[in-house]
Amino acid sequence: MEENRKELKIVLIGAGNLATNLGKALKQTGYRILQVYSRTAEAASVLSKEIGAEPVTSLARMTTQADLYIVSLKDSAFTELVSQITAGREKAFFIHTAGSISMDIWKGYAKKYGVLYPMQTFSKKREIDFQEIPCFLEAGTSKDLQILKSFAYTLSRKVYEADSEQRKFLHLAAVFACNFTNHMYAVGEKLLHEHGLPFETMLPLIDETVRKIHELSPPEAQTGPAVRYDENVIRKHLDMLADKPEWQALYKQITLSIHTYKYD
Amino acid sequence: MEENRKELKIVLIGAGNLATNLGKALKQTGYRILQVYSRTAEAASVLSKEIGAEPVTSLARMTTQADLYIVSLKDSAFTELVSQITAGREKAFFIHTAGSISMDIWKGYAKKYGVLYPMQTFSKKREIDFQEIPCFLEAGTSKDLQILKSFAYTLSRKVYEADSEQRKFLHLAAVFACNFTNHMYAVGEKLLHEHGLPFETMLPLIDETVRKIHELSPPEAQTGPAVRYDENVIRKHLDMLADKPEWQALYKQITLSIHTYKYD
Repeated sequence: MEENRKELKIVLIGAGNLATNLGKALKQTGYRILQVYSRTAEAASVLSKEIGAEPVTSLARMTTQADLYIVSLKDSAFTELVSQITAGREKAFFIHTAGSISMDIWKGYAKKYGVLYPMQTFSKKREIDFQEIPCFLEAGTSKDLQILKSFAYTLSRKVYEADSEQRKFLHLAAVFACNFTNHMYAVGEKLLHEHGLPFETMLPLIDETVRKIHELSPPEAQTGPAVRYDENVIRKHLDMLADKPEWQALYKQITLSIHTYKYD
Repeated sequence: MEENRKELKIVLIGAGNLATNLGKALKQTGYRILQVYSRTAEAASVLSKEIGAEPVTSLARMTTQADLYIVSLKDSAFTELVSQITAGREKAFFIHTAGSISMDIWKGYAKKYGVLYPMQTFSKKREIDFQEIPCFLEAGTSKDLQILKSFAYTLSRKVYEADSEQRKFLHLAAVFACNFTNHMYAVGEKLLHEHGLPFETMLPLIDETVRKIHELSPPEAQTGPAVRYDENVIRKHLDMLADKPEWQALYKQITLSIHTYKYD
């Protein structure tokens, strides 16, 4: 890990959205990725081609000679594979990139290990500037944390430390602020389309909603019928969703949550 | 209404977030606002001062001589006041700015009327460029629509037509995409603060979530444990919210809604 960028031998385990974006960032930063592992042959092959690595679809064929193994797998797959991933690789450094998985998953399996959690939403179709992504680090020892930090700073300007407990909550907060938010857009879009209105007309509103919280705190920025508790409007909206019981329940639950939020 | 900008006599009824931003935009565009009505003396006085109008706190003292009356009141207040607002003002043009109120509220009370709904989130603390705000118009007659359109184009580059039914759904969609989204930020912020993490670390994620939907449709942009249906992670998150039953219910409801959304 302390070697020259080009001499560090990296294996990427996983070829999903995060792995794809991380792999590209590593390559652009000057790192060499030996192999990309994915159970799915196509995913392994697509990403490998893009970053000049060898695709492997079986852990038995994964090299034991890399210096750094970076795991970006779905949580359940990772738990099953941790012993195979680490076996015969005593000298390597292992990191995973999941917000929701404790660092302890490595305990008993690896000597040098840690976590590098890039808090961002990744899609294969969109490339994003890794330098701007907040990366949260944790490592097994303070020495390993220093090593991981040096590595992380080559990828991002925004490096923080966070223990497993904090990271879990970062991930949970990210689900609210990103995944759940995007679903609100999806609902909005469908409501507009059903009434012959283009989604683009909402973008200025959506953009401003975000610009606002760069200046005001989210509770200060809260507007709308729920925070005013405008029962008239709320009732009308619930009626309008009568033929969509799931969205009606969603509207009720979020309105209740806004109404009972402690704003001070 | 067809007169010169400076000669058009406008009264603003309401001094809330929308009225404040609209009043400022009118003044900047060169219009003259005679009076600002608000039941709340302070609100009337603050906005009047800013835009060089006279504050009135009683409708009895509102001039009958204006050409255009713009109503930005809470829905329930508006319904109660419509007859007083219009009485003795047969020649005037009346518009309201509410997404959720039908244009028919004017019927039987006014001759020339319509709706100008600026779809945006307004706060008194933030000034925003009205030229970029999508404004949705509706009027009682096609002639009045033309008049309203000319007026609206002096304020915004983005003028659309929408009937009352469409506007209701625009407003509902806006509640999801703006108010509900902001609440997701508020929940995220609180979760971070409770674990000693600054909210700023979330801003790159929030910004990217929005940039994405300028290129991908919201369903295409959807990521996270709910859309993957990663039950492991979902279960952990629900456990983490065990001491916050309201947010736990919120998490469940949104996850269910993401999971059952028709993505094709």
